[in-house]
Amino acid sequence: MSFARFFAPAAGVPGDRILLPVDEAEHLTRVLRLSSGDRVRVFNGRGAEFEAVVDAADREGVRLTIGAPCVPAPEPRVAITLAQSVLKGDKMDDVVRDAVMMGVAAIHPIVSARSEISVASLTRGRRRERWERIAVSSAKQCGRAVVPTIAEPRQFNAIGSSGEDFPPSVFILVEPNTSAGVSLANLEPTIPEHATLVVGPEGGWTAEELQIAASLGTLVTLGRRTLRADAMALVALSAMFARWGEF
Amino acid sequence: MSFARFFAPAAGVPGDRILLPVDEAEHLTRVLRLSSGDRVRVFNGRGAEFEAVVDAADREGVRLTIGAPCVPAPEPRVAITLAQSVLKGDKMDDVVRDAVMMGVAAIHPIVSARSEISVASLTRGRRRERWERIAVSSAKQCGRAVVPTIAEPRQFNAIGSSGEDFPPSVFILVEPNTSAGVSLANLEPTIPEHATLVVGPEGGWTAEELQIAASLGTLVTLGRRTLRADAMALVALSAMFARWGEF
Repeated sequence: MSFARFFAPAAGVPGDRILLPVDEAEHLTRVLRLSSGDRVRVFNGRGAEFEAVVDAADREGVRLTIGAPCVPAPEPRVAITLAQSVLKGDKMDDVVRDAVMMGVAAIHPIVSARSEISVASLTRGRRRERWERIAVSSAKQCGRAVVPTIAEPRQFNAIGSSGEDFPPSVFILVEPNTSAGVSLANLEPTIPEHATLVVGPEGGWTAEELQIAASLGTLVTLGRRTLRADAMALVALSAMFARWGEF
Repeated sequence: MSFARFFAPAAGVPGDRILLPVDEAEHLTRVLRLSSGDRVRVFNGRGAEFEAVVDAADREGVRLTIGAPCVPAPEPRVAITLAQSVLKGDKMDDVVRDAVMMGVAAIHPIVSARSEISVASLTRGRRRERWERIAVSSAKQCGRAVVPTIAEPRQFNAIGSSGEDFPPSVFILVEPNTSAGVSLANLEPTIPEHATLVVGPEGGWTAEELQIAASLGTLVTLGRRTLRADAMALVALSAMFARWGEF
């Protein structure tokens, strides 16, 4: 399977003739220099992957005919939602890339008390759109046929008070050396259907936020050393997958 | 404990008067603007940490008097040696930084069949010295009192034929979707005293290398998705710590 893979949300059933999104068309023609007649693979971001043939690649875009379905890379048995406090600079980009690679089902960017950015400025900066592009690019690289959804950024408090978007089992990672959290070994070994992983910003959580977290689920602490905020999600996802038999 | 921490390999016992290494002295004076009379902490890289007072900070360097010992951040119960195939560009820098943060005991840079760099060019480029500086900097950030040793880069084949530096339990991470490896759940749950984690380059291992690996220990595959080569060590270390009760 050395065919180039493209994200084609319109791909539905074999025989369909579809147009690639503009970014993907550029990748196909300008980067990979593919053209009419070339064979590729497409995934629709919702878990389906197909063989496909390029019918036309010109100024009007790239047209493909969808071929036989392929077996997509398997998704984790546990659907993990990552609720990540937006980090400084472009560190959130790396977190999104890594979380998609690891196999999360959805990403909720959150703004907590010690985040150094507001929901308004994230919206103005069109950061969600940027993270969506990164999610597509990471799904392409890691072979997933699922592109995790990126939710609208919102306040952590809003999660605490509503919580309707989140499955019942919520895990909050706290700073090392805190007495507030339990170790991973305390987690139920049974693989849950859903889990939400909530990761704090560089400055950590406030006492109030830890209280909200405790009311929503289990607080887990990861070892006794200080981890960089931008590595926390990857470390925690790896640990959870190890705990739940994905590795 | 909000005192700035410095790496002082000469720190031995309370009462000692020592000179900071040049890089650390620059950090103390130019970045943190500390001077005579200021209180700091120093760690010797071998697991000991002390309070200290700046006696003099001038052109001749920074002199400190070592004070009372402090309880250092605990080290993992399992001493992990990371043998990492040198990655492209400066990606190895990030792997060193992350591995030190996670708590490895030593790092062995290796050159395998598909590495895109030679041992000779690593030596010419003084890369080992660079990684040593990164290890110090990461130990400072993550609160460790241990600075892992960075071994001389060498060929993977040399490890296979000698193996004397490595403890008996060797784990090789193979690419996903290979039938060569077992899952993490197959590893002995008993925490070993030492473990060696061997991580391949971007292009993966050759069949010959996998054979050498199999003769040295257990081949482990991490899930069924494609992971970026520069994320493998962090993911694998997290998974091993989760397996062995460090989290």
